[in-house]
Amino acid sequence: MGNKKKIELCLSPALYEEYKNPEAIAIVTDVLRASSAIVAAFMNGAKKIIPVATLEEAKKMKESGYMVAAERDGIVRDFADFGNSPFNFTAERVKNKDIVYSTTNGTQAIQLASSSKQVLVGTFMNLDGVVEHLKKENREVLILCAGWKNKVNIEDTLFAGAVVDALLNTDQFYTICDSAYMAQDLWLLAKDNLVEYIQKAAQRTRLQKNNLDDVIEYCHTLNLTSIVPVLKDDYLVRL
Amino acid sequence: MGNKKKIELCLSPALYEEYKNPEAIAIVTDVLRASSAIVAAFMNGAKKIIPVATLEEAKKMKESGYMVAAERDGIVRDFADFGNSPFNFTAERVKNKDIVYSTTNGTQAIQLASSSKQVLVGTFMNLDGVVEHLKKENREVLILCAGWKNKVNIEDTLFAGAVVDALLNTDQFYTICDSAYMAQDLWLLAKDNLVEYIQKAAQRTRLQKNNLDDVIEYCHTLNLTSIVPVLKDDYLVRL
Repeated sequence: MGNKKKIELCLSPALYEEYKNPEAIAIVTDVLRASSAIVAAFMNGAKKIIPVATLEEAKKMKESGYMVAAERDGIVRDFADFGNSPFNFTAERVKNKDIVYSTTNGTQAIQLASSSKQVLVGTFMNLDGVVEHLKKENREVLILCAGWKNKVNIEDTLFAGAVVDALLNTDQFYTICDSAYMAQDLWLLAKDNLVEYIQKAAQRTRLQKNNLDDVIEYCHTLNLTSIVPVLKDDYLVRL
Repeated sequence: MGNKKKIELCLSPALYEEYKNPEAIAIVTDVLRASSAIVAAFMNGAKKIIPVATLEEAKKMKESGYMVAAERDGIVRDFADFGNSPFNFTAERVKNKDIVYSTTNGTQAIQLASSSKQVLVGTFMNLDGVVEHLKKENREVLILCAGWKNKVNIEDTLFAGAVVDALLNTDQFYTICDSAYMAQDLWLLAKDNLVEYIQKAAQRTRLQKNNLDDVIEYCHTLNLTSIVPVLKDDYLVRL
């Protein structure tokens, strides 16, 4: 493999132990909806996003004066200022603010990945920004899908496949990771009709049940921004 | 969904907690090579196969007189009679015999699945036999991929996709499991060139390194037999 850098893909937080790699840059993705909401928040001028894994932490931060976004299973918690639809993170609310953020899957995955060399947040909305940064850094890459309660999901796998495909199209990277190959092939199958392909995703049904499926098309829009959120100490900032 | 029965796919033993279902018939697959070896053993007249998870158990069983197949990472253990190439399970060796069997991934997955309604062993070699039995039983279905040391692998995912595809082509089954949809699409992509597609699998590289890749084509041959191994108490017999 010469000097090429390894790519691996971990399809669920429950598999993280098998894939973790302190030398790698980790890309955490939770397309529907945490990663997309975080990217939207930075697009709208948020200064910091502080991911917290538990609702208890989120509530404490609210009590100490922070603006808090918190949901579980797609439902906003009553103590929170808003939930995790990307549409909630308007400039009016988030510009120059520090936001505390806790969700079902996404923020836990970010904390899990924090032993990596660097942790980025990726989604279709900032795909090229993520890929360009990875090419520039030229290190090993580990993509971690947040999934749904430790189950594997389609939308995160497809985003991972898009990253794998873009990286393998350079001469800087290689993979022998079966998940990475499979995600790449699924991405190549789906990419021309991404929103249509995603119709079968279980998460779509869940969002629909709660009248939250208005975000699906937005969250699957490619390259709305080149902003890449990065974990610094215990909060996210723009790279 | 009416009276249709649910299909779910668990891509790794490390995800089993999230998918386990005592009402389902579980199909355990470890295409390279445990499932294929077990099916080959029954094709050659084995009476029982006793899967044991640890090498210690396997060694004890050997000392008490059993014929033992045992390997780790593709290497036969010195106390064992042979390893887990399907080609080892010849009629000469296994006909009318009870065989103790321990492997890196496959036998652990079988033990994990034993809380299900019924546990079958499936591989490409007995695909239609497995599918016909599932259609006849008309129960919920959980496919468990043995993977490689808890990592997801291509060959087990493709077999799972073949089962999903066959079941969804009846009017008896449905799925909302993202892994099942993805595996089905990969199967449809790969099925006309299965052995070629599998070339990129990490396990192929591992087997090649140990000069064990002679079994790959055999293990990916469709419907060599209609025999379906089933777990009865703590051993496998023909259904």
